[in-house]
Amino acid sequence: MRGDNTESVAGTTTDGDRRLTIILTSNDMDKVWAALVLAVGAASSGLAVSMFFSFWGLSVLRKRAGAAGHMKKPLLERMFGLMLPKGPGHLKLSKMNMAGLGPKVFRHVARLKNIASPIELLDTARELGVRLVACQMTMDMMGLRHEEMIEGVEPGGVATCLGDACHSKATLFI
Amino acid sequence: MRGDNTESVAGTTTDGDRRLTIILTSNDMDKVWAALVLAVGAASSGLAVSMFFSFWGLSVLRKRAGAAGHMKKPLLERMFGLMLPKGPGHLKLSKMNMAGLGPKVFRHVARLKNIASPIELLDTARELGVRLVACQMTMDMMGLRHEEMIEGVEPGGVATCLGDACHSKATLFI
Amino acid sequence: MRGDNTESVAGTTTDGDRRLTIILTSNDMDKVWAALVLAVGAASSGLAVSMFFSFWGLSVLRKRAGAAGHMKKPLLERMFGLMLPKGPGHLKLSKMNMAGLGPKVFRHVARLKNIASPIELLDTARELGVRLVACQMTMDMMGLRHEEMIEGVEPGGVATCLGDACHSKATLFI
Repeated sequence: MRGDNTESVAGTTTDGDRRLTIILTSNDMDKVWAALVLAVGAASSGLAVSMFFSFWGLSVLRKRAGAAGHMKKPLLERMFGLMLPKGPGHLKLSKMNMAGLGPKVFRHVARLKNIASPIELLDTARELGVRLVACQMTMDMMGLRHEEMIEGVEPGGVATCLGDACHSKATLFI
Repeated sequence: MRGDNTESVAGTTTDGDRRLTIILTSNDMDKVWAALVLAVGAASSGLAVSMFFSFWGLSVLRKRAGAAGHMKKPLLERMFGLMLPKGPGHLKLSKMNMAGLGPKVFRHVARLKNIASPIELLDTARELGVRLVACQMTMDMMGLRHEEMIEGVEPGGVATCLGDACHSKATLFI
Repeated sequence: MRGDNTESVAGTTTDGDRRLTIILTSNDMDKVWAALVLAVGAASSGLAVSMFFSFWGLSVLRKRAGAAGHMKKPLLERMFGLMLPKGPGHLKLSKMNMAGLGPKVFRHVARLKNIASPIELLDTARELGVRLVACQMTMDMMGLRHEEMIEGVEPGGVATCLGDACHSKATLFI
């Protein structure tokens, strides 16, 4: 963590940087939704956007069930794999989850009111060129492999994250 | 969300902006309290302050029970209305809530030690001219109407929020 | 809160400030871990770092059990003292805590993979000169005394926090 390329953090700041950096460590549906709305909103209005996914937030980048193929893993990593949600379509609410009823209600209401769901927003974010970085350290801890992640995700460390944060108009920890 | 005025986000930055932007999506008593202490502290020391309330955070802006009058609403929206706290006097702690005993203890201690409560801080924030923006998209999702919100709240979208964030010394996601 | 030194907040900004400010109000193991990884990463790459601990986040700065000695306290403060974790070795996960099994698993995996634990990171942060500020107001509320905190912690208010935030490249609320 301290060994890898930390030069970028100390690099000179370009005035007029137009970047939004989001550090997402949560996999609560409501927080992920907010993060993606902000990311897509910023990207579609011309800001560069970096999203750094760490810890529970890594769940958002996982391929849907079945899509990652079968993988041989040690017991503990298999356990993590089973317990963590697979992608933005399987998240729980931080409140009023009510055994999955809450998220269903919100997805239903969003569809009715023509509001983009987390899955759609993640796709749009990728189309708009949002930088998606998966924290290598917490991937190692949870035994998540690069092949289990959706396309377009790059691995990164705290230096990548801080480097972008230092060149951003705003950095949000979600 | 992507259609509305996003121009402001890409607008030129004025050097020397003195603004604090707080995006509040939580209605945990402890987080709301922290957000309001920071907002009032910043406003009373001469910073411009914007608070953007979204998702659960909208609860903070609701009028107290009874004060909003009776409203005809579809079942789902009525359900949300019943389940979400009405104003900063009815919030739960994120930990040690103990069926409402925790918040009571904190309010009691705050009174003893002459520390402003969330209700008082929200009033002070309004007096000090803190900008209070309610996220229109999540209001729609939860079926909350403008008439149910306290005085001085303006509706806004992600562009409003990002616009202020881009002109702030610090932006906090709480 | 509004009376103490708020001058610093309104002070002129030095261009090229190289500071990261972290406001930590959580004592979830995963969030504390993330905060400390970011703090140590930033400090070891040459940024000045301020950490402001408030509310539940104060737990992180507490001396380990027994190390603080016996103290006479009113009942309510004694209760808080018993319920709040004592230092970064006793934190719970925000999810998958499983009565303490979750944190054990993560500490075990971190050791296996040679990843620094929260306790080690806090020590490193102090060695690297990270500024550790304990929120006086919430210490008062919870009845925590300065003697119960580890070495090198300074008391501070919202003005201290905002002062550093206004001179930072990024400010994170965790």
